Amino acid sequence: MHSKEKLISALNKGLHICVGLDSDIRKIPEHLLSNDDPVFEFNKAIIDATKDFAVAYKLNFAFYECEGIKGLRSMEKTLKYIPENVFAIADAKRGDIGNTSGMYAKSVFEHYGFDSVTLHPYMGGDSLSPFFDYDDKVHFILALTSNPGSVDFEKLRFGSNKFLFQKVIEKTNEWNKNKNLGIVFGATNPDELKENISSFNDLFVLLPGVGAQGGSLENIVKIFSERKNSNFIVNVSRGLIYASNGKDFAEACREKLIDYNETVYKLL
Amino acid sequence: MHSKEKLISALNKGLHICVGLDSDIRKIPEHLLSNDDPVFEFNKAIIDATKDFAVAYKLNFAFYECEGIKGLRSMEKTLKYIPENVFAIADAKRGDIGNTSGMYAKSVFEHYGFDSVTLHPYMGGDSLSPFFDYDDKVHFILALTSNPGSVDFEKLRFGSNKFLFQKVIEKTNEWNKNKNLGIVFGATNPDELKENISSFNDLFVLLPGVGAQGGSLENIVKIFSERKNSNFIVNVSRGLIYASNGKDFAEACREKLIDYNETVYKLL
Repeated sequence: MHSKEKLISALNKGLHICVGLDSDIRKIPEHLLSNDDPVFEFNKAIIDATKDFAVAYKLNFAFYECEGIKGLRSMEKTLKYIPENVFAIADAKRGDIGNTSGMYAKSVFEHYGFDSVTLHPYMGGDSLSPFFDYDDKVHFILALTSNPGSVDFEKLRFGSNKFLFQKVIEKTNEWNKNKNLGIVFGATNPDELKENISSFNDLFVLLPGVGAQGGSLENIVKIFSERKNSNFIVNVSRGLIYASNGKDFAEACREKLIDYNETVYKLL
Repeated sequence: MHSKEKLISALNKGLHICVGLDSDIRKIPEHLLSNDDPVFEFNKAIIDATKDFAVAYKLNFAFYECEGIKGLRSMEKTLKYIPENVFAIADAKRGDIGNTSGMYAKSVFEHYGFDSVTLHPYMGGDSLSPFFDYDDKVHFILALTSNPGSVDFEKLRFGSNKFLFQKVIEKTNEWNKNKNLGIVFGATNPDELKENISSFNDLFVLLPGVGAQGGSLENIVKIFSERKNSNFIVNVSRGLIYASNGKDFAEACREKLIDYNETVYKLL
């Protein structure tokens, strides 16, 4: 199935919550630790419990890379286990000179088989276009992130009074010839979302920051709903996958996800 | 041996050329392809031939990741093979929110054992500080890169008439409390180097772009020499490792490296 169509199909069903599989061996329930690959067993159970209720899964590469090759095997197995019709995002935050970005793209899309990737804009258009060449995939460019350091560069103002992150959104719109680009926009400040949503046009929007980082799901959904924009994906990682630390962890995750989905349905 | 000291010791010997092990299975000599791990065999021979003449080795992660776990095994083995006294740079271009950057740092420094890493500045200070916490390692922040897309964001001008990349250099200087930070500064335009070198202070400078990308080694060395700044590392990848495509590839690489070293000695 075409990657972008998977996403559109899930959004059309009213699904907007992405399960962030930031699975950390130090935080998963203890009873899993006797397995050969505890992180994969954890992910498998979460996927079984949530696959009909999630718009997507997002895997942050750092959580897998920090365990070396063992971690990447868990990632490979997880990717194979995600059902073919569910959208999978590589939160890899890559970006390099042209020929090198092409190799990262090959790794993410061909080796692992993700549907989508997150990218650092800093090096500019030709550092991103080798990803864009995979035109059935969806590419999310970092615009405004949810961390305090976003003030250092993302919120520097240019002559025209625009922030750097607003220039990134402007450029991403320009590059969106195949209608398969998106932005990452931190969900911690609803005013910033309100002030910028009119510039999103038909870009997909991935919003981290709900849950552990303090963003409010209600605020986000209201703002998108008012604009009749349904191209948004709210990622929740720790708030979902660690909903319980007991044997019921997967069920607790599903229940929490269903709660979140109901919050979304009511406001849309 | 302390990572930063390895670098300083090599620079003090007058070594300034870094061998970029961007080893691509489609480009290495054919006679190696019958080995179990041709990329490692290639790297091993290059390291044997150049270890006394290189300031450092730089491995761009994309070249290894694109082969999946097999590629990362070649990287692991290569890292173990680099002599303990030679500085090794992870050209990984990472950067994520705090706790996640910490996991990337763990991967690069603890799992693989690199001495140094390259980082994307876009997300700001708290996305970089988990790397900086490894205070015996050297951290290179992308400032001005050598690709055409550097005009998209790196060369946007701020109110004060400064380019974004100049703000990055300014911030990197501020963050350099442990005297172990550096910048990546593309070597393709000598005028840009001349105009900015006074802002480098005691930052280490990693310069890509010589060789295949068109930068001139002579120009770079002259500019640093005039400023009595010897904190610079010029990376050459394709121009060195593919000096010959025959059985003499490693020897040809060494000869080319010795030629480059002589060019440097003459101008310093």
